[in-house]
Amino acid sequence: MAYDALVWSSLHGLVIGDKSVERSGKVPGVGLVHAPFALLPTPFPESHWKQACELAPLFNELVDRVSLYGKFLQDSLSRTKKVDLLTSGLLDIHSKMLHINKKEEIRLGLHRSDYMLDEQTKSLLQIELNTISSSFAGLSCLVTELHMFLLTHYGELLGLDSKRIPGNTAGIKYVEALAKAWHECDNPSYFPQLYNTHLVATIQKTLAEIDRDGKLLPDGTLSVDGQAVAVIYFRAGYTPIDYPSESEWRARLLMEQSSSVKCPSISYHLAGTKKIQQELAKPNLLERFLDNKDDIAKLWKCFAGFPRREGGGNNIYGMRETLIRLQKEGNEEDAAYILMQRIFPTVNSTVLMREGCCRKDQAISDLVIFGAYLT
Amino acid sequence: MAYDALVWSSLHGLVIGDKSVERSGKVPGVGLVHAPFALLPTPFPESHWKQACELAPLFNELVDRVSLYGKFLQDSLSRTKKVDLLTSGLLDIHSKMLHINKKEEIRLGLHRSDYMLDEQTKSLLQIELNTISSSFAGLSCLVTELHMFLLTHYGELLGLDSKRIPGNTAGIKYVEALAKAWHECDNPSYFPQLYNTHLVATIQKTLAEIDRDGKLLPDGTLSVDGQAVAVIYFRAGYTPIDYPSESEWRARLLMEQSSSVKCPSISYHLAGTKKIQQELAKPNLLERFLDNKDDIAKLWKCFAGFPRREGGGNNIYGMRETLIRLQKEGNEEDAAYILMQRIFPTVNSTVLMREGCCRKDQAISDLVIFGAYLT
Repeated sequence: MAYDALVWSSLHGLVIGDKSVERSGKVPGVGLVHAPFALLPTPFPESHWKQACELAPLFNELVDRVSLYGKFLQDSLSRTKKVDLLTSGLLDIHSKMLHINKKEEIRLGLHRSDYMLDEQTKSLLQIELNTISSSFAGLSCLVTELHMFLLTHYGELLGLDSKRIPGNTAGIKYVEALAKAWHECDNPSYFPQLYNTHLVATIQKTLAEIDRDGKLLPDGTLSVDGQAVAVIYFRAGYTPIDYPSESEWRARLLMEQSSSVKCPSISYHLAGTKKIQQELAKPNLLERFLDNKDDIAKLWKCFAGFPRREGGGNNIYGMRETLIRLQKEGNEEDAAYILMQRIFPTVNSTVLMREGCCRKDQAISDLVIFGAYLT
Repeated sequence: MAYDALVWSSLHGLVIGDKSVERSGKVPGVGLVHAPFALLPTPFPESHWKQACELAPLFNELVDRVSLYGKFLQDSLSRTKKVDLLTSGLLDIHSKMLHINKKEEIRLGLHRSDYMLDEQTKSLLQIELNTISSSFAGLSCLVTELHMFLLTHYGELLGLDSKRIPGNTAGIKYVEALAKAWHECDNPSYFPQLYNTHLVATIQKTLAEIDRDGKLLPDGTLSVDGQAVAVIYFRAGYTPIDYPSESEWRARLLMEQSSSVKCPSISYHLAGTKKIQQELAKPNLLERFLDNKDDIAKLWKCFAGFPRREGGGNNIYGMRETLIRLQKEGNEEDAAYILMQRIFPTVNSTVLMREGCCRKDQAISDLVIFGAYLT
């Protein structure tokens, strides 16, 4: 079965660059190896899966609402700003936008919310919400297809039903959302560059290249190599190492100033920071951004942030006190740390495939739900 | 465009094993690299393409008819037998089958006929007909899809119309033919091995493994690891190095004696040898196997075998005389050589992609047509 899975991976594009091959990652099509995957899907309660699916649109709406409260973002991140260069740089651009009262007419969010199922409380708890460069929408779809393929053929033998694997169309839906955003724009670019299935011209550039090749037209259009850019999708810009020089920061500012749809905008990006998620987990915070009581309750239920600790009894109280003191009396750096409820996820013995090898091991799983939002 | 093509290849399984990677070829899913391909399709006259398509069923029928004339195969290959160990081994098995008057009730042929377009005579000439392990049905479909993808996006720029690329379903059709043959059998095996999309159990074995694990049941069924085998598809057995020991020959004999559908049977295999194709190109030979005059004329037209030389005037007469003398007076080894009309195919400047690199070069093209035959 492992053999079949590996062959399937090669034939269906479930591949990544093999770091051990020198040119891999630099030249596409060379030095490929199957992506690591679990040979079989991990059992997960349907009720909690449905719960997670219901949460996706709520988180999308929450991010959008929060992104509109510039002062909240600035205030909540003021302490983080002092110790985190990335956040600090983003906040600088963000405040510039606040000063010129920049509005994002079309807002696109491609978010990924990660959860774990807490063994003790049997509750679905959020690990993090990604609002920039959410990964694995494409690869995860292929893994779902692979599992369906394997269960169709070995399911009877294993006593597993392929029909019980939930469908996964995250990859296609993400592309659709990007295409929709593009169609929303008035002057889409029609240049014969690399097109996706929606025949939308796309350009791939590093931040430094954008700084070099991009400029802002009087009407606010971002022009790159003389081409009007409708939608900007970030595959970088979320870690400090993505900003080695001032050039990258200039590029980020340039794009933020433009009328292009940004996925994400600076405020969406900031709304996805761990610090903001911790803030939102504080009592009565969600009420500032959402009206529907049920929605608020649903979101609140899955927060693993600090305040939930009051409720969820567990065996690290001693340590907890230390952490609270750190927060209260600690210096700026300590204060920047995020407190989270410790989660005890279910451990499953899983067959893991990596570099063509098959290894049985104990593993814990994330449940990740992809959500797209366009307004 | 080359970049897009390489990315497309990785995502759609247009990949092969990279010999430079040690474990490649031994373990699936590792050491992958895009298959070499021409970046754009080569222009080819539609009329000649249609001609080649029309020839496919005729060649299928011809092979089948010839395969039924045991004596013709034995006689025509008698001289080759003396110098070619592979043919000799195949002929031995073939004559054993003749002696026990073995009949193949269900005959399956997956053939590939290769052509070149002769610049001088503007005629489509056959290079060879493959009746065993015809390759590239799968990869060629992907290359067609790749070219369609590229022309959909760059066609306008290049002045090329993606709709003018003929469709290619060889891969699917081959699988369908194999599945049909399986369904034709009375007692198909239903064991949960590797299944293809038709949910047919398949086992992959080397010839030596078949010799070790296979046995013939009294009713003629081939049993491998206790499983009845309905259809045998050969990916090996067509070169001398595939028979390093007697074990491989025993396996080939065992399979031939069985009631399994063989793709190909020994007689199909022999019918595809160059020598037989040369024989068939002799005047009035086709008439022995086919009735329809038009069909015979169509086949005759594409033969590049020796006799055609009488008609097709070209500039290697001097050499030709030598070759004819070799055939007439030469020893057995000389006599075994195949004479073919020299073909002058059209040379096109082509962009060739290999190992992620792009190289412009002069290239000549085969036109290969896949044909499936089941009776």
